[in-house]
Amino acid sequence: MKTSILTAFITTIAFNAFAQDSLMFHRISDEIMLHGTCYDNLYTLCKKVGHRLAGSPAAAKAVRWGEQAMKEAGADKVWLQPVDVPHWVRGEEHLYIKPEDGRKVEIPMLSIGNSEGTGGALWEAPIVMVKDMDEFKKLSDDEVRDKIIFFDYHFRQDIIFTFEGYGDAVKYRWMAPNLAASRGALAVIIRSVSTGDDDFPHTGSLHYADSLKHIPAVAIGNYNADWLVKKCKQGAATAYLRSECHMMPETVRSYNVIGEIKGSEHPEKIVLVGGHLDSWDVGEGAHDDGTGCVQSIEVIRTLKALGIRPKYTVRAVLFMNEENGLKGGLAYADSARANNEEHILAIETDAGGFSPRGFGFDMPAKKKAQILKYKTLFLPYGVYDFGRDEGGADISPLKKMGVPMAGLIPDPQRYFDLHHTNNDVFEQVNHRELKLGAVALTGMVYLISEHGLK
Amino acid sequence: MKTSILTAFITTIAFNAFAQDSLMFHRISDEIMLHGTCYDNLYTLCKKVGHRLAGSPAAAKAVRWGEQAMKEAGADKVWLQPVDVPHWVRGEEHLYIKPEDGRKVEIPMLSIGNSEGTGGALWEAPIVMVKDMDEFKKLSDDEVRDKIIFFDYHFRQDIIFTFEGYGDAVKYRWMAPNLAASRGALAVIIRSVSTGDDDFPHTGSLHYADSLKHIPAVAIGNYNADWLVKKCKQGAATAYLRSECHMMPETVRSYNVIGEIKGSEHPEKIVLVGGHLDSWDVGEGAHDDGTGCVQSIEVIRTLKALGIRPKYTVRAVLFMNEENGLKGGLAYADSARANNEEHILAIETDAGGFSPRGFGFDMPAKKKAQILKYKTLFLPYGVYDFGRDEGGADISPLKKMGVPMAGLIPDPQRYFDLHHTNNDVFEQVNHRELKLGAVALTGMVYLISEHGLK
Repeated sequence: MKTSILTAFITTIAFNAFAQDSLMFHRISDEIMLHGTCYDNLYTLCKKVGHRLAGSPAAAKAVRWGEQAMKEAGADKVWLQPVDVPHWVRGEEHLYIKPEDGRKVEIPMLSIGNSEGTGGALWEAPIVMVKDMDEFKKLSDDEVRDKIIFFDYHFRQDIIFTFEGYGDAVKYRWMAPNLAASRGALAVIIRSVSTGDDDFPHTGSLHYADSLKHIPAVAIGNYNADWLVKKCKQGAATAYLRSECHMMPETVRSYNVIGEIKGSEHPEKIVLVGGHLDSWDVGEGAHDDGTGCVQSIEVIRTLKALGIRPKYTVRAVLFMNEENGLKGGLAYADSARANNEEHILAIETDAGGFSPRGFGFDMPAKKKAQILKYKTLFLPYGVYDFGRDEGGADISPLKKMGVPMAGLIPDPQRYFDLHHTNNDVFEQVNHRELKLGAVALTGMVYLISEHGLK
Repeated sequence: MKTSILTAFITTIAFNAFAQDSLMFHRISDEIMLHGTCYDNLYTLCKKVGHRLAGSPAAAKAVRWGEQAMKEAGADKVWLQPVDVPHWVRGEEHLYIKPEDGRKVEIPMLSIGNSEGTGGALWEAPIVMVKDMDEFKKLSDDEVRDKIIFFDYHFRQDIIFTFEGYGDAVKYRWMAPNLAASRGALAVIIRSVSTGDDDFPHTGSLHYADSLKHIPAVAIGNYNADWLVKKCKQGAATAYLRSECHMMPETVRSYNVIGEIKGSEHPEKIVLVGGHLDSWDVGEGAHDDGTGCVQSIEVIRTLKALGIRPKYTVRAVLFMNEENGLKGGLAYADSARANNEEHILAIETDAGGFSPRGFGFDMPAKKKAQILKYKTLFLPYGVYDFGRDEGGADISPLKKMGVPMAGLIPDPQRYFDLHHTNNDVFEQVNHRELKLGAVALTGMVYLISEHGLK
């Protein structure tokens, strides 16, 4: 008898806790969908700051914007955390191609980030086309030496979850220049790591092997890649490349922007939500990752607007230099380690401002089981997929300290049409989709800052 | 022992059937994502035909396009089913507003479809603003008579599933003109039935009560509605309306476009998939409902391309006149009744070409239970929500004949930004989202045409 009374009592408490959480989700959703400022904030970031590669004057302006936006959101405390970042500069760049049967035409291109250019000189060389790395390996040394290798690897459109397709194709951007350099190639052209049914070239970073020559590497859009394939099949094609891009010898002092609300019961324990403030030097860095920044700020604003005092400290972080160095994420983890900070959860939002569909998790099974119990609360907001392993680049250095990680998963279909292009602009972001992502994030932060993560 | 062998045998068959279905889903997905023609078809429909209100020359052109596209998809049989449709014409239209404190300005507007205009004359009248029907009812007769009533009802942005918000707000477009006419108002202005954070006016249909005067009704975009609210609060505002729209006295002969693949085992039983071919006379009718048409055609093309001979007949229907009369849906049901056709399922796709998220169902519990067993097959494609009651307008006349109904449910966040506007154009459709919707539809059609629906 006593047991059943106790059971009923516990059940009632559990039910009330669920009802309470469900009600709070509703209030969070109404607050953001009706009064959210993230879309307006994104407009300002995209149109008044624009793209903002780490080390650039625009990145410094973005830091000032982020500090101000965090204060306006009502954070108890806002501060800048110093980060020394690499400083890559694009400069002017041109690629011309002369097919055997035609005249020389200029092709829209982008040098791959962190790459070295031709030093401003015009280089001319025959193009050798391969469809993938296997085909490259079969080339004779003569076929590679002093040639410009065109890697025509396609982003696999048959893979439904596009981040998997990205993982498959991105090695051509990241690694192919080293592969080509190791055999004496002059430069590399890649088909952009892109799902786009269009001609936008996509930049992004590469990583040169120290032991190899740092040869120029550029990306072209899908339509022009199709054209180049056709021309290469018809006869010999010649590339003319002139580019000025280079890595500056000195790093630049920059900052992570941090805002927090102090926890009422566990001020020393932190729930982190963040995205990255830097972007590539094209477009406006709207989906990558302006949306993650304004959603993280929205979490702070919403908790404050609703008068929610979290039990654990809630911290929003706008990381610097995710795109070409990860120095912000590394500096944050170093500081956390030095200050003995305890993070009970770190959530990243860096997959675009599209309709949220789920969260990925990278944490011990017991903690994940606790979060899975909350899934029902997310379903009315279209957030259903809790089955993926996901964190985020900026928070990955925290992982080594044992911090549980999560990542917001928005609908992934449009992201790699826009990613790292001149087309990643404010107009590509839908106000309702962006806000709904903020609802999902705020809901998750609320739950963990209310119940902890044991 | 015998029982357990039987059980094992049945389990094996069930498992094999599941594995077979899963494999076929994979083949369907690869075929559409890699070789799908729906996106190219949509380009042609949007750019070579354009918007296509029933009864217009463009609608006749769309019928010829649909017939050709259905043939190219490889349908065994393609035919046109006659439908007599109403013929509404917009003509020229202008709305100017003069606030008490300012000069007269022209406001972008659209007459609501099926409405009568001012006969080309310029009407001038004071504006009376109400926030909803309740507030309208409180007005005195003097406050209504000969006035232009501005219904400032907002689409509820707090409702996450936007089709529910639409259901709530659309009565102002459909009914408010009658309400105003019943008390002697001259005309009606409504805030568009729109989630748009912009200034696009949204058209759509109204239905005049026969007993009441058919007064002009126009819609303005959200930004101008905000402006007008401000001006009305500051003082008296006057509207100047001139419009030529009218319903033509004669109907026009048009057609539903139908293509089918004959079933190998049950040719007399039909699985229907369809959308509507007509659109409003603005934009390009891309999401409403060009996407539904090209997805329906893609179902036929994909089954043919994969050499799948369905056991039940698969029929794709492009219905005419969904927007302002539903004559196509009614004619189709009449014909089905006259010919004693048996439809085992009718699926509509008329909610935009966005990432698919689920299907709604309107059918007996037993049939629904059968479909719910297939849910696991859809999850890898992001299709998870099988919990809504949904069919579609065009197939609703079949419901009276007891036909089980289903509707594809895409992500609903962007639809009502674009719906019935000049902004509903090809460029708003993403190639991967559109194709993924076709994968979900083809998967559902495949399953039912393979297993039946008992």
